[in-house]
Amino acid sequence: MRFGLFGGATAKAGEANDSQIYSEFIDYVVEAEELGFESVFLVEHHFTGMAQVSATLTFLSYLAARTQKMRLGTAVTVLPWHNPVLLAEQAATVDLVSGGRLDLGVGRGYRYSEYAGFCMPFEEGGERYEESLEVIRKAWTSTKRFSHHGKYWHFEDIIVEPPPTQKPHPPLWVGAASDRSIRQAAEGGFNLLLDQLATPAMLGHRVKIYRDAVEAQGRPFDPMNVGVTRALHVAMTPREREWAYEMRAKFLLTVHQLSTNPNAPPSAMNRPTSLADVRIATEEAALIGTPEEIIGRIKALQALGVEYLLLLDVTGSIDALRVFAREVMPEFKQTNKQRQTA
Amino acid sequence: MRFGLFGGATAKAGEANDSQIYSEFIDYVVEAEELGFESVFLVEHHFTGMAQVSATLTFLSYLAARTQKMRLGTAVTVLPWHNPVLLAEQAATVDLVSGGRLDLGVGRGYRYSEYAGFCMPFEEGGERYEESLEVIRKAWTSTKRFSHHGKYWHFEDIIVEPPPTQKPHPPLWVGAASDRSIRQAAEGGFNLLLDQLATPAMLGHRVKIYRDAVEAQGRPFDPMNVGVTRALHVAMTPREREWAYEMRAKFLLTVHQLSTNPNAPPSAMNRPTSLADVRIATEEAALIGTPEEIIGRIKALQALGVEYLLLLDVTGSIDALRVFAREVMPEFKQTNKQRQTA
Repeated sequence: MRFGLFGGATAKAGEANDSQIYSEFIDYVVEAEELGFESVFLVEHHFTGMAQVSATLTFLSYLAARTQKMRLGTAVTVLPWHNPVLLAEQAATVDLVSGGRLDLGVGRGYRYSEYAGFCMPFEEGGERYEESLEVIRKAWTSTKRFSHHGKYWHFEDIIVEPPPTQKPHPPLWVGAASDRSIRQAAEGGFNLLLDQLATPAMLGHRVKIYRDAVEAQGRPFDPMNVGVTRALHVAMTPREREWAYEMRAKFLLTVHQLSTNPNAPPSAMNRPTSLADVRIATEEAALIGTPEEIIGRIKALQALGVEYLLLLDVTGSIDALRVFAREVMPEFKQTNKQRQTA
Repeated sequence: MRFGLFGGATAKAGEANDSQIYSEFIDYVVEAEELGFESVFLVEHHFTGMAQVSATLTFLSYLAARTQKMRLGTAVTVLPWHNPVLLAEQAATVDLVSGGRLDLGVGRGYRYSEYAGFCMPFEEGGERYEESLEVIRKAWTSTKRFSHHGKYWHFEDIIVEPPPTQKPHPPLWVGAASDRSIRQAAEGGFNLLLDQLATPAMLGHRVKIYRDAVEAQGRPFDPMNVGVTRALHVAMTPREREWAYEMRAKFLLTVHQLSTNPNAPPSAMNRPTSLADVRIATEEAALIGTPEEIIGRIKALQALGVEYLLLLDVTGSIDALRVFAREVMPEFKQTNKQRQTA
């Protein structure tokens, strides 16, 4: 079992300035690495007004110098916002300065507020995503100069530097939820990010779809190529548990508001539309409870083929990670050891 | 007198892979800070095939974690290549994680090979630069949501995060050479980068133009707002000196080739067109010689109003900086002390 972090610095309403928010989050990541968390996947968002990380690769480059072994991920870099060549350069630079620790999550974006802010038609997202990905892969792997003349981007006789450290290139991760998009992810050679609201039953189904599609290609399935995001809160009392559910609901509904355009096509991700939906999804999906309950939930996920959890700490305070590292992790380290000696 | 570094990691033909080049350059910068160099201004270049730094802000973010007090600069970020909002986010993130140490050099770009690679008409550069700058300043300083509908970029109802740490925003630096562009720089509130081929007489003239234009606006002139780039090589023998001239000529002619389009308008910067030009410019402008000769040259610059030198070490080896710190710097520290007690 492997544990990572998911999310990123976010303002708690009126609590701190951006400099404090980032600086606390940096300390949080550095200590998380010491506690045994093996990755951090940071979101990338724009125009939120709540200090979500925007320049994610720039920030990961800083974290590359502050961490030693941790994988550094994006979840996800929304390709339509970026010049694909500049993005390939930035990602390769993070990969290089980190000694090959970049995991690049990519997506087409789902937030209406971001498409509106960038003045980009939502319908172009898919095409822009595909074209961008093609350029990025070429930029990373081509040792000769190349040209690209697509619908949205034109490059003539270029060679893109630096090359990434990982060969042929850093792992690409995508979020997917429908059977079709999960199969496409497997067939395209992507690692898989599964979302924080999927119930254990959904997760089991999705891991199986992905595994079957990978094996159908004659490749071995590695469960570490499937990262499952889970909200985390160690709640020792019913009151604390209730508070955590409320925090989750508030956060998820804010994200929902940022994402919604009544005229936009529905997203494949599970997105709550009411407080009741959020509540149900959270109760089933989140790791909220006592350490014993959390261990039980993780074991249930493990039985479904999940071996890599990305934890989104509800409070964003290091205390939860400390308790998790002390009370929950050892249970799964043992499993790893047993597996190695088996 | 203040000393900084100018340039960035570059491949020495066939010598090392990109990972080694960056890693050696990182060590170089870290030791330079210990030796007393107070800034590093990194170039940004694309498609060179010689490993010049491309994702400059990403790389500076890494260096922010590896250095303590050093100013972190770009020289320059070519605005026409970048989405101005993403650039504002990236620059603000570097400023934030570095505790307010970013110096953002900006320019319209002069290399034909880059315009051709990005499939951008060279003639659009000036307009794109101006529009981009307008968006970046607004993105950094606006505390309310704003919209921008220009010729090249459209943004609707956005707020750009994080805000930079330095207020109202990180210093903007521009390269300028003609009287007109130097006056514009002063009037626009920019700091000034003066190029490595300008002779001492040219520099004296340019500093005076800038100083007069700043003072004409009723602002005090700060000589630390003028960074003068100089090639550096400590040469103890005539043979070594000859070798340094040759290295310089080779490098400058490569840059010239990357920059040149026979149909493009001439650039305002001093760009050599023959080996003879390079030789003359280098002999007059560069700090190549024994420590005593270099001290003499710097004192001559100081007499012309230059107080901030950005050194472009010809060999890129730390040895030259060590010798410089040991043999040259103390001469100017004394000057500083004398000035303080005067």
